[in-house]
Amino acid sequence: MSSRHAVAPARSVDDHRQQIEDLLRPLAARESEAVPMAQAVGRRLSEDVYSPLDLPVFRNSGMDGYAVRADSIATVPATLPLAGVVAAGNTGELTLPEGAAMKIMTGAPVPAGADCVVPVEHTQSGDGTVTIETTRAAGDFVREPGTDVRAGQLLASAGTLLLPRHIAALAAVGLADLPVTRKVRAAVITTGDELVPAGSPLLPGQIYNSNGIALAAVLTENGVDVVSIAHSTDDPAEFRQRLAEATAAADVVFTSGGVSMGDFEVVKDVLKTLGGQFGPVKIQPGGPQGISVVDGIPVLSFPGNPVSTIVSFEVFARPILRELAGLPELPRVELPLLDPVRSPAGRNQFLRGKVTDTGVSVIHGQGSHLIAAMAQADVLIDIPTDVTELAAGAIVRVHQL
Amino acid sequence: MSSRHAVAPARSVDDHRQQIEDLLRPLAARESEAVPMAQAVGRRLSEDVYSPLDLPVFRNSGMDGYAVRADSIATVPATLPLAGVVAAGNTGELTLPEGAAMKIMTGAPVPAGADCVVPVEHTQSGDGTVTIETTRAAGDFVREPGTDVRAGQLLASAGTLLLPRHIAALAAVGLADLPVTRKVRAAVITTGDELVPAGSPLLPGQIYNSNGIALAAVLTENGVDVVSIAHSTDDPAEFRQRLAEATAAADVVFTSGGVSMGDFEVVKDVLKTLGGQFGPVKIQPGGPQGISVVDGIPVLSFPGNPVSTIVSFEVFARPILRELAGLPELPRVELPLLDPVRSPAGRNQFLRGKVTDTGVSVIHGQGSHLIAAMAQADVLIDIPTDVTELAAGAIVRVHQL
Repeated sequence: MSSRHAVAPARSVDDHRQQIEDLLRPLAARESEAVPMAQAVGRRLSEDVYSPLDLPVFRNSGMDGYAVRADSIATVPATLPLAGVVAAGNTGELTLPEGAAMKIMTGAPVPAGADCVVPVEHTQSGDGTVTIETTRAAGDFVREPGTDVRAGQLLASAGTLLLPRHIAALAAVGLADLPVTRKVRAAVITTGDELVPAGSPLLPGQIYNSNGIALAAVLTENGVDVVSIAHSTDDPAEFRQRLAEATAAADVVFTSGGVSMGDFEVVKDVLKTLGGQFGPVKIQPGGPQGISVVDGIPVLSFPGNPVSTIVSFEVFARPILRELAGLPELPRVELPLLDPVRSPAGRNQFLRGKVTDTGVSVIHGQGSHLIAAMAQADVLIDIPTDVTELAAGAIVRVHQL
Repeated sequence: MSSRHAVAPARSVDDHRQQIEDLLRPLAARESEAVPMAQAVGRRLSEDVYSPLDLPVFRNSGMDGYAVRADSIATVPATLPLAGVVAAGNTGELTLPEGAAMKIMTGAPVPAGADCVVPVEHTQSGDGTVTIETTRAAGDFVREPGTDVRAGQLLASAGTLLLPRHIAALAAVGLADLPVTRKVRAAVITTGDELVPAGSPLLPGQIYNSNGIALAAVLTENGVDVVSIAHSTDDPAEFRQRLAEATAAADVVFTSGGVSMGDFEVVKDVLKTLGGQFGPVKIQPGGPQGISVVDGIPVLSFPGNPVSTIVSFEVFARPILRELAGLPELPRVELPLLDPVRSPAGRNQFLRGKVTDTGVSVIHGQGSHLIAAMAQADVLIDIPTDVTELAAGAIVRVHQL
C-alpha cells in the first residue's frame, strides 16, 4: 500500500472568516433573558423599558426646612405657629393649617395647603413657632410629581449598553430585573493524549493544557458565556461524547487540536464523518482549520499549537463574536514596522508584535508553540498573503490583542 | 428655646478629596490572594512569577511526519525502514534505530538518535518503509527544550494586569492558581425611612431605593469588591448595627443619606458620636459630606439624593479607588460648552452633560433628585468654584462618567 498526501487547495483568510461569520450571524436573533439589576451592568437591553410610575412619585420637599404658603411669608420676618413635623417616609395624609408652618425633611411629602419650602438655614425655631426670615415664591423647593419622569415614558431603548447611570434610573422606578439579550453560549473542547491539567505532575512526553483556559479567557473577554471547558483524548468515542455534551449546551463549539496531517487527528476524523469541512487556510500560524455543523450547532476547529489556537480565534471568530455581543470593534491601526520582516509566499502571516512610541516591533520567537513569547505581544501584525518581505519603516496593519 | 442654624465654613472639593485619598491610600499595601487561573483575567499579579519548568518541556516534533537522522537522507529519494509510530502523549523511552525512520506526530517526543523531522507532505509511505523526497538539516522541525522559556525564567512581573495572553503562558507552565492583589472590599449602607426595595409596592410618601444598587455598580466598575449592600431606617440603633457589620467585613464603608440639616440625620448623628467630621463642601450637587473612621475602617458619607450620591462618588472616591485597583485614570478632556451656564458663587458645580461631535451639551434637568435625567449624561462638566456664568463656546473640563 502506498499513499500520497494530497494537499487541498488552501482558501483565503477572508473566505474562511466570511463562512464563519455567515454561520454565526443568525445568533443575533437569540432570545432575551431577565437578569437581576445588580448583574445587568455591561449587558444590552433587549426591549425598550418604560417607567411604571412618575418620578418624583409624589410632591416632596427639596430641602430640610419649613413647608408654608408663600403668601403667609409675604412680609418677613414672619413668625408662624408650628403645626407638626413631616419626616421623609411619612405615609400619612397631611394638611397644613392656614397661616401655619410644618417642619419638613428633604424628600418628605409636602402637606396639602403648603406651596413652598423655606430652607432651615433661613429660619429660627421658637417655642411652638418658627420665624421665617426670607420670602419665597410658590413652588420654591417643592419637587412636583413627574418632573423627572412620567409614568409610561421611555427610560432606555432596546440595545442600550447598560451602565451604572442607567441602573440608577431603572432602580429608581422600582424595577428589580431587566430584560437583556442573553450572551452567546460557547463550549470549548481541547483534544490530545499529551495534555495534562494544571497542577498534575507531567510524565515524559506530556505537556500542560493551556488552550482550554486561554480560549475561555478570550471568549469571556469578548462577551461570550463559556458554558463548559472539556478535554478529550485522541479516542474518537470519547471525542464524540464530549461533542454531544457540548452541542447540547452551547450555541457554538470551539475545538483545539486534532485537525492536522497526523495519524490521530480525532477532531478531523470524527467531524468529517459528520459533514465537517477541513483543510488548509492561507494563514500562518494556524493553517489547518475546520468548520462543521453538528445538530445545528456550529463547531469551529482550530489547530492545537497554543499560538495557532489564539491567532485563529482572533482572526476568524473575534469580530463576529464582538458584533453578536454588541461590543465595539477593536481598533485596527496602521503603524511603521520597526524590524524587517520575511513572510512565506501564499500565507497571510500574523506576527506577534509590540507597539512602542515609534511603531511596532516584532516579538522574538514566532514559532506557533512559543506561548511565553506570545505573552509579550500586544498586537498581531498583519502581513498580507502576497507579501514576502518588508523593510523596517514599512507601514503595516496591526490588530489589537 | 430658640436656635439659629450655624453653617460651618465650607471646605474645598480638593481638600475633601485629598483627605479621602490620604485615608484610603494605605489600602495599597493590602495582602495578596491566590485565585484560580480562570478568574485571574483583569487582576494584578502581586508577585513576580517564574517558570517552574522549561518550555518546550522535552524535545518534540514541530510537524506531522517522519523522525530521521539528516545524514540518512543526504541523497533523496531515500527509502528507509519504518521503525514505529510516535504519537503525541507517548510516554515511553524511544530510540531510532540507525538508518531507520519513525513516523511522528506534532508535539510527540523526538526519539533519541533522530535529529530532524520530515513533514509528511514530502514523503510516501510504503509497506514497512517510507520514502523521503527532500533532504533536511539536523534540527529541522525539532523543538528543543527551553527554547520558549527556561525553568526559573521570569514569566510575568508583580503588577502585571493579567490578560488572556498572560493566562495562556502561565497555564502552559502548569500553574493552577496565581497570586494577585486582592480587591479593595467595600460595604454600602443606604439610609432613610422612606426607602423601599425594588419589587415592593410603594405606600404614599415612599420611594424606591436606587442608591444601594447604583453605588454597588460604580464600585464594581472601578475594581472594588462589594461585600455587602445593606439598608438602615433612620433608627440610630439599627444604623449602628449595620455599621458594625459593615466595618467588620470591609476595608471601606460608603453610606448614603442622613447627613444633611434635618431632624433625623441618622448617619451624621451616629458617626459624630464616633468622631466623624460632617459639614458642607463647596460642591453642587452633594454639599453635605462626612468622613469618619470606625474601628480603623474609613467611612465615607454621601448625601442621599441619587444624583448627589453618584456625583460624590465620582468626584471624591473614584480616582483613589482606580489607583488602588491599578486601573488607568479616566480621561479628563476639555471641550467647548454648547449651552450657556450659570453656577452659584462659591460652589464647584458638576453639571451632567452629553458629549457630541461639536462639544458638550448640558442635560436638561439638573436637580439632584433627577436621576432619570442623569441616565442621559455621559460626562460631568466641571464648573470651577469661582465661576458664576459661562457663555456657549467657553472651554470646560469634563470627567467621563
